Amino acid sequence: MEPCALAVDLGGSNIRVAVVTRSGGIAERLSRPSRAAEGREAVLSVLLSALDESEQVLQTQTALGIGIAVAGALDVRSGIVTQSPNLPGLDDTPLRTIVASHFADRLPVLLENDANAAALGESWKGAGVGSQTLVCLTLGTGIGGGIIENGLLLHGADGMAGEIGHMTIDPSGPLCNCGNTGCLEAFSSATAIRRLAIEALGAHPDNAPILLQRCGGSPDRISAEMVAEAAAAGDLLSQTVYHTMGKALGIGIASLINIFNPDTVILGGQVAKAWDLFWPDTDQEVRKRALRVPGRRAHIVSAQQGDDAGLLGAAFLVFSTQGSFSIS
Amino acid sequence: MEPCALAVDLGGSNIRVAVVTRSGGIAERLSRPSRAAEGREAVLSVLLSALDESEQVLQTQTALGIGIAVAGALDVRSGIVTQSPNLPGLDDTPLRTIVASHFADRLPVLLENDANAAALGESWKGAGVGSQTLVCLTLGTGIGGGIIENGLLLHGADGMAGEIGHMTIDPSGPLCNCGNTGCLEAFSSATAIRRLAIEALGAHPDNAPILLQRCGGSPDRISAEMVAEAAAAGDLLSQTVYHTMGKALGIGIASLINIFNPDTVILGGQVAKAWDLFWPDTDQEVRKRALRVPGRRAHIVSAQQGDDAGLLGAAFLVFSTQGSFSIS
Repeated sequence: MEPCALAVDLGGSNIRVAVVTRSGGIAERLSRPSRAAEGREAVLSVLLSALDESEQVLQTQTALGIGIAVAGALDVRSGIVTQSPNLPGLDDTPLRTIVASHFADRLPVLLENDANAAALGESWKGAGVGSQTLVCLTLGTGIGGGIIENGLLLHGADGMAGEIGHMTIDPSGPLCNCGNTGCLEAFSSATAIRRLAIEALGAHPDNAPILLQRCGGSPDRISAEMVAEAAAAGDLLSQTVYHTMGKALGIGIASLINIFNPDTVILGGQVAKAWDLFWPDTDQEVRKRALRVPGRRAHIVSAQQGDDAGLLGAAFLVFSTQGSFSIS
Repeated sequence: MEPCALAVDLGGSNIRVAVVTRSGGIAERLSRPSRAAEGREAVLSVLLSALDESEQVLQTQTALGIGIAVAGALDVRSGIVTQSPNLPGLDDTPLRTIVASHFADRLPVLLENDANAAALGESWKGAGVGSQTLVCLTLGTGIGGGIIENGLLLHGADGMAGEIGHMTIDPSGPLCNCGNTGCLEAFSSATAIRRLAIEALGAHPDNAPILLQRCGGSPDRISAEMVAEAAAAGDLLSQTVYHTMGKALGIGIASLINIFNPDTVILGGQVAKAWDLFWPDTDQEVRKRALRVPGRRAHIVSAQQGDDAGLLGAAFLVFSTQGSFSIS
């Protein structure tokens, strides 16, 4: 039997658990609503019962450990969730100890931030295979980042390195959820795309007949996907929103290329699916702003593992503690 | 006899060589004009004869190797200088092989970019002692950077990581030497301070009586130090230049704090000596823009080793190849 890991993607909407083999195959998977609104005990109950169920599936297979990708800030060394905006009940929870105790300390438990786990997953089995220096951006409701050099994830002093969404793109830009102005996240996240569209709609409703039709005349119903669909269908205002989003993303990526000299920059998350809408502006800014040598070196590519990147990264955490296992 | 390293700081103006002991003492030092304008052979001749001279000083002491901090971009693995704006004769020079051959391959030769070497030097014996995640900025004619996590310097795919001077601070900002607009270097280097002062002088000469007096009425003679002296003496225009410089620096440092979650940010180079003139604006932007946890973690401090940081870092390269020697 091939050794495997129990991998968890602990998100604000769903808790997903999978059995991942050492070769990166996903053998079994299940998904349960996180019950985040009900607080800590509810979330932990969903998590532990999903893990129990997955472990029973294993039968004669050997689980080497449990890896958990958490939507939030962690102290990786102590295994404590410090702050999770989407799972507020988990703030200051010693998650590693809780899960390990549930399994009577039979299995090692490893935690990682979800954006870092996605970077590990893409590095191991996705768009980052063979990369030596990798920057991975997850463009979702917010913007997460993970940076890997020579197989090692950058963690920083508190395990919070990689908050690429909060680099300043334009000091006088729009207000971000973090309180700063002009962050990448305030331009290029799904939240920002929605906000940019609603703001533009107030000023130029005549430019958005398709978007107005799709949202049934109610701007409140607008989502980033809806803006993308309208843009693809020729809606001028929606296209302009993606120009703004793409330009800001290009400015940010160019700075990251100059700072890290990566061979690979991976763009994942739901927003990255609208690639054709933002890429021309992104590419133009990168070409203009990246230094010659690092600019030529960096390949900017779409993520390959989609929603599974975090699960694969969580599994990788487990395998990488097993001796000679490594990314490259 | 204490083991020691021959450390070189290979700059556009001077080539400095020192004997550095394993405990970080600088036993002997000499400095020679680089003769950069005379081309490659002249520079190599100065370098090799200075090394010969320094080695003779050693007498019975043991040199473990030669470490060279180079003002320019390098391929660290192959030991080739790829591009050096201040030593153009050295472009594409296999410097490691040349120096090693001169010493009949008796001594290992290690190369590092000067900003990276300064980060290593501060980390080993300066303001970064005890740091786990360190970002070091050298504010000089240009702006260089070096990033160290857990004792390892980030190199990137071509050894060009750390070009912090070319992160975009304001997309619509002034033109940088690199061709981009709004780079940190276009706001906060000595070159930028000089340019900002000259531009402001054209528009508001009445605000700069002290600066005008110091430059003898010839704006061409203005230097960053002169602007600093005038600002310290109460010159309004010169103070405004340092406000602009400090604000841009704060925006850049805040992004770096969010990206790296460093415990320590070191500011070195000649411009950092005007600390009191830029710090209030820098501090204000960092407080406004850094995320809570990493913002509280990061200590922003002045470099301690001044011009010797590069020499110490070059020596560290040599010692760190000798078994159990490390930063912390």
